[in-house]
Amino acid sequence: MRNLENRRVILTSRPVGVPQSEHFATDTAPVPELSPGQILVANRFVSVEPAMRGWVNAAPNYSPPVPVGDVMRAFGVGEVVASQADGFKPGDRVAGMFGWQRYAAVDAVIARRVTDHDLPESTALGVLGTNGVTAYWGLLGVGLPQAGETVVVSTAAGSVGSAVGQIARLKGCRTVGIAGGAQKVRQCLEEFGYDTAIDYRDGDLGAALDAACPKGIDVYFDNTSGRISETIWPRLAVRARVVICGTASITNWDPWPSGPRVERHLLVKRARMEGFLLFDWMDRYEEAVRDLAGWVRQGQLRYREHVLCGLEAAPGAIAMLYRGENTGKLIIEVN
Amino acid sequence: MRNLENRRVILTSRPVGVPQSEHFATDTAPVPELSPGQILVANRFVSVEPAMRGWVNAAPNYSPPVPVGDVMRAFGVGEVVASQADGFKPGDRVAGMFGWQRYAAVDAVIARRVTDHDLPESTALGVLGTNGVTAYWGLLGVGLPQAGETVVVSTAAGSVGSAVGQIARLKGCRTVGIAGGAQKVRQCLEEFGYDTAIDYRDGDLGAALDAACPKGIDVYFDNTSGRISETIWPRLAVRARVVICGTASITNWDPWPSGPRVERHLLVKRARMEGFLLFDWMDRYEEAVRDLAGWVRQGQLRYREHVLCGLEAAPGAIAMLYRGENTGKLIIEVN
Repeated sequence: MRNLENRRVILTSRPVGVPQSEHFATDTAPVPELSPGQILVANRFVSVEPAMRGWVNAAPNYSPPVPVGDVMRAFGVGEVVASQADGFKPGDRVAGMFGWQRYAAVDAVIARRVTDHDLPESTALGVLGTNGVTAYWGLLGVGLPQAGETVVVSTAAGSVGSAVGQIARLKGCRTVGIAGGAQKVRQCLEEFGYDTAIDYRDGDLGAALDAACPKGIDVYFDNTSGRISETIWPRLAVRARVVICGTASITNWDPWPSGPRVERHLLVKRARMEGFLLFDWMDRYEEAVRDLAGWVRQGQLRYREHVLCGLEAAPGAIAMLYRGENTGKLIIEVN
Repeated sequence: MRNLENRRVILTSRPVGVPQSEHFATDTAPVPELSPGQILVANRFVSVEPAMRGWVNAAPNYSPPVPVGDVMRAFGVGEVVASQADGFKPGDRVAGMFGWQRYAAVDAVIARRVTDHDLPESTALGVLGTNGVTAYWGLLGVGLPQAGETVVVSTAAGSVGSAVGQIARLKGCRTVGIAGGAQKVRQCLEEFGYDTAIDYRDGDLGAALDAACPKGIDVYFDNTSGRISETIWPRLAVRARVVICGTASITNWDPWPSGPRVERHLLVKRARMEGFLLFDWMDRYEEAVRDLAGWVRQGQLRYREHVLCGLEAAPGAIAMLYRGENTGKLIIEVN
């Protein structure tokens, strides 16, 4: 593999808030030698996640920040091109935390074998990857929806949200999506099958929720925090469950933002709010992918991808995501 | 019973915030005739609860507000003096929502039979009543403490908090109590067996919590909300559970108070916050009382009562509670 040259996107300084293109640089480097137990993966696609803000910020988080000077942490999907690990051979399709780079030399234990060869490779980063599995276990493992209940989803047209809404509907729930702008609202209704979709930028969100949820909100899948959540809380039903999956509306946690206190809502409604991180559900990952892939094949679970060409597009892509300019799961096709 | 005269404490106007003595008046009235299925109870003791603020305020709550002109809603314990209900006879000891009055004519189905005759009657309003059962199921049913975990309790010397701390300790947890003032801190350590007790009014609460909880906080039993809770949140351990049982530090929810957002703490720690109301656990009430009474008999569960003499003391007692002037479960001995 010594003749291969690696293209990499490096974190060059530590951002405060949303990472911008100036916090990264692209370079080239030799492909590292494999140690025993390692595989060399040629990335076909790498992913862009809202969580990347947390991965590079200095604030305490659920994983240590990416060191300045290192390849940017990212999920990737691609092909094994060399293997020093039992059970992996060139040509195998794998997904994992391979970073924003052309070639990744990784311990085989962190690689997930992708076996749904009838489905597009890129789905391993979205609807059949972290987004779909997050939606699946966040909703079914923490939100615990029952048929007939009302499920409200924020960032309802997003890659996690759109899957949450569709899974909730498959489980017999009434689904209400909250999204920003007429186009996303239309997407919610026409593509993702929400019973109701609300544009939070247009008109009185509280009144729209009252109309959409006459019996209150049983499950709130929270991808945003902020004003949307504050409008939801007083409308929670008794024994409601709030899945805290993301905080997309808060662009900066330093200084820490304030808002109306939630405790009394939880007390009066005996409601539950719980943080969800996919890492805690890794042992049940394949179980989710199996169901999700089945629904995709049957046309019951739709998804959108927004593919940017070339690793050069990666540095600006996180900010693009936070500006809401993507029209589906944001993915970089590695050149 | 027509020769009996009832003494009653009536809600005369609707308070905003903490009810004061001017919101009540005492009067006398004839004892009502019993309907079939009813019993007449002579209250020996009636109780004073922080929850009474919510019971009389107009803000949406978990039960409809006490109507102006009605007897104040309150728990009581006393003796059956007349019965039109099968299974109840004069002399039976009962507890229930009997109101701030000398005599209560109530449906027998709302009365709880008090059978621990070897223990003081007043305990049915505190450690063997709503406070003890709230502590028991709030902690064991929602907080789910495991042996070896760190449990932090706010209003740690209070009638609920002191029971929470002692039950957690009986279950093998390290217990940290937060209370206001040196006297309550001493009570926490000397009477209620907390491993550590912290005076939140004295010095740096965060630093004291860091010292007391080096491995983070696994269970936070929240009776206060406000600044104490905000200092706890960043110190929650992974998979922590926060039991929202009361909001004693917030004297007014109109206008609704603000504070630092909690979502990111819950997300990063995959923590859970859940409201607890005793009403949801009524079918498991006796199970709790059985354990609590056993611990009281064995000297493993200590409690304090602060008894005021006469119904005339009731109108000012809620405000007294909110000023923190009571030195134990606040109870009115009916004259």
